[in-house]
Amino acid sequence: MLDANWRSALAEWQAVLGSESVIVDPVQLAAVETTTFFTEQKVPAILRPSSREQVQHCLRIATRFEVPIYPRSSGKNWGYGSGVPPQNHCAILDLSRMNRILDCNEKLAYVTVEPGVTQQQLYDFLTQQKSSLWMDATGSSPHTSLIGNTMERGFGHTPQGDHFAHSCGLEVVLPSGDVVETGYSRFPNSAAGPLYRWGVGPFLDGLFSQSNFGVVTRMTIWLMPAPAHFEAFLFRCDREAQLAPVIEALTRLRLSGTIQSTVHLGNDYKVLSSIQQFPWDVTQHKTPLLPAQMDLLRARLQFGVWNGSGGLYGTKAQVACSRREIRRALAGKVNQLRFLDDRMLALSIRFAKPIKLFSGWDLSKTVALLQPLYGLLKGIPTDRPLRSAYWRKTTPIPAQPDPDRDRCGLLWFAPIVPSTADDVQKIRQVTTETLLAAGFEPMISLTMITGRAIACVIAISFDRDIPGEDQRAMACYLSLAEKVTSLGYYSYRLGIQSMEEMNGSASYGDLLRKLKSAIDPAGILAPGRYEAARNPVARAAGAN
Amino acid sequence: MLDANWRSALAEWQAVLGSESVIVDPVQLAAVETTTFFTEQKVPAILRPSSREQVQHCLRIATRFEVPIYPRSSGKNWGYGSGVPPQNHCAILDLSRMNRILDCNEKLAYVTVEPGVTQQQLYDFLTQQKSSLWMDATGSSPHTSLIGNTMERGFGHTPQGDHFAHSCGLEVVLPSGDVVETGYSRFPNSAAGPLYRWGVGPFLDGLFSQSNFGVVTRMTIWLMPAPAHFEAFLFRCDREAQLAPVIEALTRLRLSGTIQSTVHLGNDYKVLSSIQQFPWDVTQHKTPLLPAQMDLLRARLQFGVWNGSGGLYGTKAQVACSRREIRRALAGKVNQLRFLDDRMLALSIRFAKPIKLFSGWDLSKTVALLQPLYGLLKGIPTDRPLRSAYWRKTTPIPAQPDPDRDRCGLLWFAPIVPSTADDVQKIRQVTTETLLAAGFEPMISLTMITGRAIACVIAISFDRDIPGEDQRAMACYLSLAEKVTSLGYYSYRLGIQSMEEMNGSASYGDLLRKLKSAIDPAGILAPGRYEAARNPVARAAGAN
Repeated sequence: MLDANWRSALAEWQAVLGSESVIVDPVQLAAVETTTFFTEQKVPAILRPSSREQVQHCLRIATRFEVPIYPRSSGKNWGYGSGVPPQNHCAILDLSRMNRILDCNEKLAYVTVEPGVTQQQLYDFLTQQKSSLWMDATGSSPHTSLIGNTMERGFGHTPQGDHFAHSCGLEVVLPSGDVVETGYSRFPNSAAGPLYRWGVGPFLDGLFSQSNFGVVTRMTIWLMPAPAHFEAFLFRCDREAQLAPVIEALTRLRLSGTIQSTVHLGNDYKVLSSIQQFPWDVTQHKTPLLPAQMDLLRARLQFGVWNGSGGLYGTKAQVACSRREIRRALAGKVNQLRFLDDRMLALSIRFAKPIKLFSGWDLSKTVALLQPLYGLLKGIPTDRPLRSAYWRKTTPIPAQPDPDRDRCGLLWFAPIVPSTADDVQKIRQVTTETLLAAGFEPMISLTMITGRAIACVIAISFDRDIPGEDQRAMACYLSLAEKVTSLGYYSYRLGIQSMEEMNGSASYGDLLRKLKSAIDPAGILAPGRYEAARNPVARAAGAN
Repeated sequence: MLDANWRSALAEWQAVLGSESVIVDPVQLAAVETTTFFTEQKVPAILRPSSREQVQHCLRIATRFEVPIYPRSSGKNWGYGSGVPPQNHCAILDLSRMNRILDCNEKLAYVTVEPGVTQQQLYDFLTQQKSSLWMDATGSSPHTSLIGNTMERGFGHTPQGDHFAHSCGLEVVLPSGDVVETGYSRFPNSAAGPLYRWGVGPFLDGLFSQSNFGVVTRMTIWLMPAPAHFEAFLFRCDREAQLAPVIEALTRLRLSGTIQSTVHLGNDYKVLSSIQQFPWDVTQHKTPLLPAQMDLLRARLQFGVWNGSGGLYGTKAQVACSRREIRRALAGKVNQLRFLDDRMLALSIRFAKPIKLFSGWDLSKTVALLQPLYGLLKGIPTDRPLRSAYWRKTTPIPAQPDPDRDRCGLLWFAPIVPSTADDVQKIRQVTTETLLAAGFEPMISLTMITGRAIACVIAISFDRDIPGEDQRAMACYLSLAEKVTSLGYYSYRLGIQSMEEMNGSASYGDLLRKLKSAIDPAGILAPGRYEAARNPVARAAGAN
């Protein structure tokens, strides 16, 4: 039952947006209340503004009637809570109708977009324009919002893989309904608004990423000119002990600038989950898939304990130089180091059989697996990684996957670790032990986002249709998070269930609360999102 | 005459710091009240804390007695106001005694420093440690504070030239005296505090750069591993018309990643001012130095209308690749494209004469000029550019230059322009016309800090000992700023006389004031610094 404030707010939202854009249909509400793990939050309404002005109205009304509102761009924040608000009873501000590409500059390599613009939409746009620019894509759904992913500080695979670092000139609607533009964009006639991110005065963009201070309605994304030549490099480690020297070598290559893209390493469980669903036959319908069973599958399907990839971008000669450096640095440390360009990939597809005869490298099985990864290194979105959400499902993956709808269970835990062999070994070990003991497979990817830091993304993948799994998976998440943060590794991004990981020093929480009160005195915007608790207790206190 | 609040604050500061660290001696106060242009601000006291705890005490006392306080690290912010507060009657919080290098990590390439640590100090430290790391240096005094320069978003010449982009993990004392740490540093046991700048939750570092929200007492600076090979490239444009195609070519090289360092171009006036003082003989003691006179000097001293430089970093093979790309891209567009490495520089010094005989390139004159620039490309601090502050002085440059003390006149105006030929031409033209008409030389440097943006640094250099020059120079600054901002180019950094350039949209100013009130309700920290006016008027309103 809605109270008087809610009824008034709904009436005003309807007046502003039209009643067809204020959704209260229970079936549609149930869909947005669903994510890939257990939640109880109820959503009283979905608002679907089509313009920045309508967003301003929506927020003004929310502030006036003190009703909370939760923005989502595409709602594809899978594994972190999709589009479900962290607190109960928030109206959802769905920005997906604001999907214009406002500007594209070929010469200075950028686009300016609204929050509804997805990875696939930008990719199609650039293709249609016969653009000479490459975007970066994150390995999530092609229908992920570019602004949503950037504000969550997501990352991809190219030299522009750190999305937030390659964004500029935000337009933000504050809870009051006022609009601010960041950097030089605040000057009406600014020439460098989309070009130089710091502007003059305090740099405020960071205030609007991973926060609940404003709704970003416009952003510029820096793209890269398509290189004259591109090559992917791929390698395996057949033994766990190889990982340590490989991490050390890759760190040096990243710091020296030889490798300018992110480097991605996936363990065996991670790779298997992107090839197929859980091998029920191998385990005789038991879970988890045990390391000894994985050994057999690895040998059969020909992948490593660790499987690495990265991209080289430049002229043919520059790429050849980097190739030689990588060969030298990884010599004797990895198995099957391969370099692949467009021509070789096309040939591989055509001549997989004869290539196998002569080189012993069986491409037929791996090309299908490789192509999406190879594409990501060129900024081409793919839905391939998304399919791994169906890992534990006993039904096949549908043509149009939707992990929320299909009751896929998925929890991501993604701490940042220093780019050293020691740190990587520590997190690998605690993850493997904790997940296997809890009955889940330790799917781990390591993304070397800079020369200094590795984003370690751990998936807890389960089937929500099995009674008790929701609870077991969440208990596993909490146990893992506690162990990992006690080692000093903290998440780069938080799911709606884990905002208490924000708690650090008391003074930091105080500062955030002061800023929040100054910007959103009524507390109506995304309450609970990236907020530190006033009195951190229990687990968080123990970890800190 | 100090009021009761001031007297109480002074007494408490003395109790906390010891009276020898609370300076009220008129001679010392007069020194810190002096910059390279006319100011009237009086400073009642200088506080010299030696620790973060003392800084906390100083700010708590200032907040309690509501007396304003203005932090300075080294006070070497020449051309922008040195260490003089933008408003009258602020105590100066001099952080130069906090000069410890707290951490240095060779493997992950960073140092952690306090605000008193200078460029020269870090350079000496790395040399003594026989470190394999290179720092970036800004072309100002070697005794400039690293934190001060980074928080002002200064830049240098190497691939780490954008200082703020290569900093991490701030420790900040708020006006309340509370301490916050940014990023992961807020977690006591964090492993990635100095390694990953975004942390989790809102990214707050930007809030403390170019602002008056807190005093930064610790910062991590990311360094670069010394490359296996380094080469500088140098070129000239003998005709103005060459600049446009050169900018376009360099922009492509920057965007493609072939050139990873900033590229620096100085015009003839800029270069001459770094070689010598004003040529009074040539002009028969008249000012300004006219373009026709400059033509003669250029021919005599062998430099171009524009003079460019940049660095190539990598293995020998990688540098050779980049060298070939640069040769190809600049072929027919520039004069005297040269590549120079350590060996060639040493040989040049040794064999300047025979080289001239065989190549026609007269090194003897240029080596002395080149060496500091070559060093900056390797991150070696130099006081050479500082000497240009003495351009119009009729007395020689002293062994220990101090532009404030020596009544050098210097006003920097540093707008960001898009990295296009058209924008560069526009700013060049308006600058040249405005400065010559006002009787000053148009000294211009263009630093391509990214592939998209150029920092155009314009010096108005004068002699404060000549009656009326202070006023004429400031009038020239204001006129230039008005013309340039009306073209859409805004400063990347502001002098204490020009904070009204902060004024953009009203909503932006409102947001800044709300943040300021939340963090500093008593308004005691650096009032007027990077603040937008409540009611922008006159020039600023016209420009916006």
